[in-house]
Amino acid sequence: MSVLVVGSLALDTVETPFGSREEVLGGSATYFSMAASYFSPIQLVGVVGADFPERHVQLLKNRRVDLAGLTKADGRTFRWRGRYCDQMNEAQTLDTELNVFEQFNPVLPSAFRDAPFVFLGNIDPDLQSRVLDQIDHRKLVAADTMNFWINRKGEALRKTLERVDLLFVNDTEARALSGESSTVRAARQILRMGPRVVVIKRGEYGVMLLDKHGFFSIPAYPTAEVRDPTGAGDSFAGGFMGFLARVGEVTPATLRQATAIGTVLASFTVEGFSLERLIDVTASQVAERFERLRRMTDLQPFAKDMALFQEESFRLLEG
Amino acid sequence: MSVLVVGSLALDTVETPFGSREEVLGGSATYFSMAASYFSPIQLVGVVGADFPERHVQLLKNRRVDLAGLTKADGRTFRWRGRYCDQMNEAQTLDTELNVFEQFNPVLPSAFRDAPFVFLGNIDPDLQSRVLDQIDHRKLVAADTMNFWINRKGEALRKTLERVDLLFVNDTEARALSGESSTVRAARQILRMGPRVVVIKRGEYGVMLLDKHGFFSIPAYPTAEVRDPTGAGDSFAGGFMGFLARVGEVTPATLRQATAIGTVLASFTVEGFSLERLIDVTASQVAERFERLRRMTDLQPFAKDMALFQEESFRLLEG
Repeated sequence: MSVLVVGSLALDTVETPFGSREEVLGGSATYFSMAASYFSPIQLVGVVGADFPERHVQLLKNRRVDLAGLTKADGRTFRWRGRYCDQMNEAQTLDTELNVFEQFNPVLPSAFRDAPFVFLGNIDPDLQSRVLDQIDHRKLVAADTMNFWINRKGEALRKTLERVDLLFVNDTEARALSGESSTVRAARQILRMGPRVVVIKRGEYGVMLLDKHGFFSIPAYPTAEVRDPTGAGDSFAGGFMGFLARVGEVTPATLRQATAIGTVLASFTVEGFSLERLIDVTASQVAERFERLRRMTDLQPFAKDMALFQEESFRLLEG
Repeated sequence: MSVLVVGSLALDTVETPFGSREEVLGGSATYFSMAASYFSPIQLVGVVGADFPERHVQLLKNRRVDLAGLTKADGRTFRWRGRYCDQMNEAQTLDTELNVFEQFNPVLPSAFRDAPFVFLGNIDPDLQSRVLDQIDHRKLVAADTMNFWINRKGEALRKTLERVDLLFVNDTEARALSGESSTVRAARQILRMGPRVVVIKRGEYGVMLLDKHGFFSIPAYPTAEVRDPTGAGDSFAGGFMGFLARVGEVTPATLRQATAIGTVLASFTVEGFSLERLIDVTASQVAERFERLRRMTDLQPFAKDMALFQEESFRLLEG
């Protein structure tokens, strides 16, 4: 099944302790599409300026991303400039030029209107709602957001959330959105706002997924080579949604597997600048990291040792 | 098998968004002993002042903690005063009175000298070494430390670490000790300093265990009721070591189970002030949370879906 993604395409200038890159390919829709394209056909809705290099368009086409929803507008492409310091867990935004993205009005080609899987990238919640107005059927709508919208367009965001099945947020955003200081409580609060699944991204600490069936938690893949964290969250969402669309079924088990696959895709992204590493992933590398994650989190029950936990042993020691 | 613990007993004054307590029972050896006592006999070495309430001594005795190594010195008991703010992930120390702890010289009763499992609480690394000098046989020596010692007594700490099998540290300490900014690299570096296992405590984000067999990672138990984080790390270590001593075998599987048991014990500690909640744990509650943690982290392989990860499907999409 296919995945529709609406979000940004950008030219990023990034600096990390491992080096820097000028005006490289970035944007939420870009990372998402690349990661998801390993699993499912992707339909992208976005806008670029007249200066957007043709080779970037070609890169997306080579991965069979359907670009019928990509507008080339007069003006300059959205630009972001940021820096990561020592621990690399948070970007410091040095400059944002919205450019053509400021007038972005997502219009879906008719062929995109019955997309079963939808990802609303981190854009104005009013635009997110406008996308949903144009969609006929859907199996799963996922959305991302950020503190900027939570603080400035809370009302609109609430309305969007009522129509969203799954929300991707990070720790801080979950707290800001819910007004709760504990992540667990924040997540539970978000489940009352509309989404039936909430996925909390915690950067190097991994991901927590909550729904009515309970919790699932998985660590980040422990790569020793974090060179540039840009796009990690969108690659995570891309791997997650691409995998779900490929399986075609949203169950507790596939949601967990999707979380692991998203984690794996994000781990490749952060090993290089821009999409350097992500575009060069092989299926066996994905499978290998998935299996490593599975072993890393494998906790065996202690059948024969269960006597350790009989009330008697407690009483005995209580004296 | 028994566990020897050397560390502090304290009177804590704590403030959190959920309330405050004055001069309640605290200290690393106290939390450790309580948590560990659910599983194994405990031998405690520490010092208290003449003002240490007899009811605290009785509480430890009731859990069959062997207090032959507890010195009652002239003077006041070690006191700590701290505050946790909104997110409660880090204590703000308002005041520390070392008092009798300043002259602490751990002397082991002869009956303690063949303890198979040893936990060196967070004390001066020279004292930690002095404890090891007095021990004849041992199966596993674990130690805790903190930035104060890493920065001020790095040399002595290095010497202790050469004799330690397992080190408990948090993220920040691991980075400070190794000089590495990535936690994964920091952990690997620590494995070159002596310990064959390193356990990195990440507070609400859970725990990562590293040894030559690889990684293990487990989230914190998602309790919605964090009232006072004091003692979480020591309760974790107590549950961990108590469990290992009870099983009597240190294997990759028991180390993982120990990590989960430690996580469970810590989750009870943070639900109340001081040892309020920890002293009132039942075996079935421990077993229940262990099982919940196991289900929370259970990731099934996708046998029939493995075709998703065949190189062909990647190539197909690459076009």
